[in-house]
Amino acid sequence: MRSIVECIPNFSEGRRSDVVDQIVAAIRTVPGTVLLDRESDPNHNRSVVTFVAPADRVVTAAVAGAKKAAELIDLNKHSGEHPRMGSTDVIPFVPISGITMEDCIAIARSCGERLWSELGIPVYLYEKAATRPERENLAAVRKGQFEGIRDEITSSEARRPDFGEPRVHATAGITAVGARPALIAYNVNLGTGNVQIAKKIANAVRHQSGGFRYVKALGFELKDRGIVQVSMNMVNFEGTALFRAFELIKREAQRYGVPVIGSEIVGLVPQRALNAVADFYLQLENFSENQILEHRLAEAIEETE
Amino acid sequence: MRSIVECIPNFSEGRRSDVVDQIVAAIRTVPGTVLLDRESDPNHNRSVVTFVAPADRVVTAAVAGAKKAAELIDLNKHSGEHPRMGSTDVIPFVPISGITMEDCIAIARSCGERLWSELGIPVYLYEKAATRPERENLAAVRKGQFEGIRDEITSSEARRPDFGEPRVHATAGITAVGARPALIAYNVNLGTGNVQIAKKIANAVRHQSGGFRYVKALGFELKDRGIVQVSMNMVNFEGTALFRAFELIKREAQRYGVPVIGSEIVGLVPQRALNAVADFYLQLENFSENQILEHRLAEAIEETE
Repeated sequence: MRSIVECIPNFSEGRRSDVVDQIVAAIRTVPGTVLLDRESDPNHNRSVVTFVAPADRVVTAAVAGAKKAAELIDLNKHSGEHPRMGSTDVIPFVPISGITMEDCIAIARSCGERLWSELGIPVYLYEKAATRPERENLAAVRKGQFEGIRDEITSSEARRPDFGEPRVHATAGITAVGARPALIAYNVNLGTGNVQIAKKIANAVRHQSGGFRYVKALGFELKDRGIVQVSMNMVNFEGTALFRAFELIKREAQRYGVPVIGSEIVGLVPQRALNAVADFYLQLENFSENQILEHRLAEAIEETE
Repeated sequence: MRSIVECIPNFSEGRRSDVVDQIVAAIRTVPGTVLLDRESDPNHNRSVVTFVAPADRVVTAAVAGAKKAAELIDLNKHSGEHPRMGSTDVIPFVPISGITMEDCIAIARSCGERLWSELGIPVYLYEKAATRPERENLAAVRKGQFEGIRDEITSSEARRPDFGEPRVHATAGITAVGARPALIAYNVNLGTGNVQIAKKIANAVRHQSGGFRYVKALGFELKDRGIVQVSMNMVNFEGTALFRAFELIKREAQRYGVPVIGSEIVGLVPQRALNAVADFYLQLENFSENQILEHRLAEAIEETE
């Protein structure tokens, strides 16, 4: 199995598309890199780039993107709705195939070391790569943003970077580098116009208020359709499976006499997450992904190569 | 998308493993061919080889296997429980990716033409490649087996081959070449020891007795587990989906107060068949296979190449 890592760097530029073009081009100069998606939000003034690469190339590609971002983005001149602390704000590495979370943590550390030694950008490690429990949560790491961290980092031990000296890069700020499982944006639609029901069910399913450990959820109204939605981030689909969240929401909705009328996956989903759904509902005995024709084929082709 | 075809030739030899080795080796001499499986049954005296190959190579690989089988297997000396009419008894082509059933029918015709012109083996086209309705069913095509067809083919218009003169090859007989959808062996296990219930439910689900068009089914006892099983061949999973057969069996079992305790997929299953299960149970809205990370990755890599 090839070792494939997904990397989803977030850059603090969502208005000048030529800048994002140049960053993406820099990433793609690294052979073996495959761009899966790029999205820019002008209000957030932020872009999210999604690419995959072999494990031995992914750091080089991420550093190439961060180098170009440092050249082109000056945080002193940046404003937008989304909180940010670096030209390259955050670089998460996600294990996709033939690779463990531990490998991705090592990759994150290697990336952090290179951001400092090659670009002079200090780095906080976060999520699974965090070196302190309080740095697992990205929002906590980024608190105060570029300006606040710039002022505190020189004197506060709590703010000391994992790589680099205790000062932000003058224009590129500081970057959070981490490892995490794949995230799935998953919404369940309810056949009612009453948004209170969606909010109550979101409360039941999400970790924050006592629900499943790896689910973040909010209740929304979809005005154009006259329905409501439980909108979720499944932050670890192997820990909390899609079908489990779906079944709980269906059961909670029954309590209000409301039907689930559909669900939707927004963006990308790993194949394994869907296979787990099929396995659950068909009550499969002894099923192995090696029985999937395409899986066997991919492995056989790699053996041949 | 690469055009990938699966080919599952059946050879009339299940006892001499060196013979099967040589046939498999001949198939593998064709570049791009990937062997997925081989199974020999001594009682049936028959072997089933499963391989995939690019559309432009799959016929060459199948003919190479048939040539070696014609050299090594003499049907006049063959006996076994399974009906057979050729050293290479049957060659089905199955569309896997980037290819239609119509393409596979053309591939089957090309294969039939070459078996006759290069090896002197006449050919019946069957299933989706059939040229007459009565040849869709392989069992009907093979009726009388090698000996019966040898005696009738010279005089019976109904027995006239689709390729070749109306006489069997003296030792290699005649081969059925066809195109068909992927077949999934799928069993559902019931929490009862009463085999009559499995037989009744098999009757309800299978095409032959009024059930789903693309399901063949039988009821069996699994003595070692003290349970019974509805054992199915899903002969066209896009026409009759796995989840639909599963749900019907679950409902029929309820009528007897019997639970479904599990199901099992035997051998290989195309990824699309499992994705359809996830789509159904999660009630997904507007889901596309392009949202599957591995799918997007495979396409992006091919574009790069």
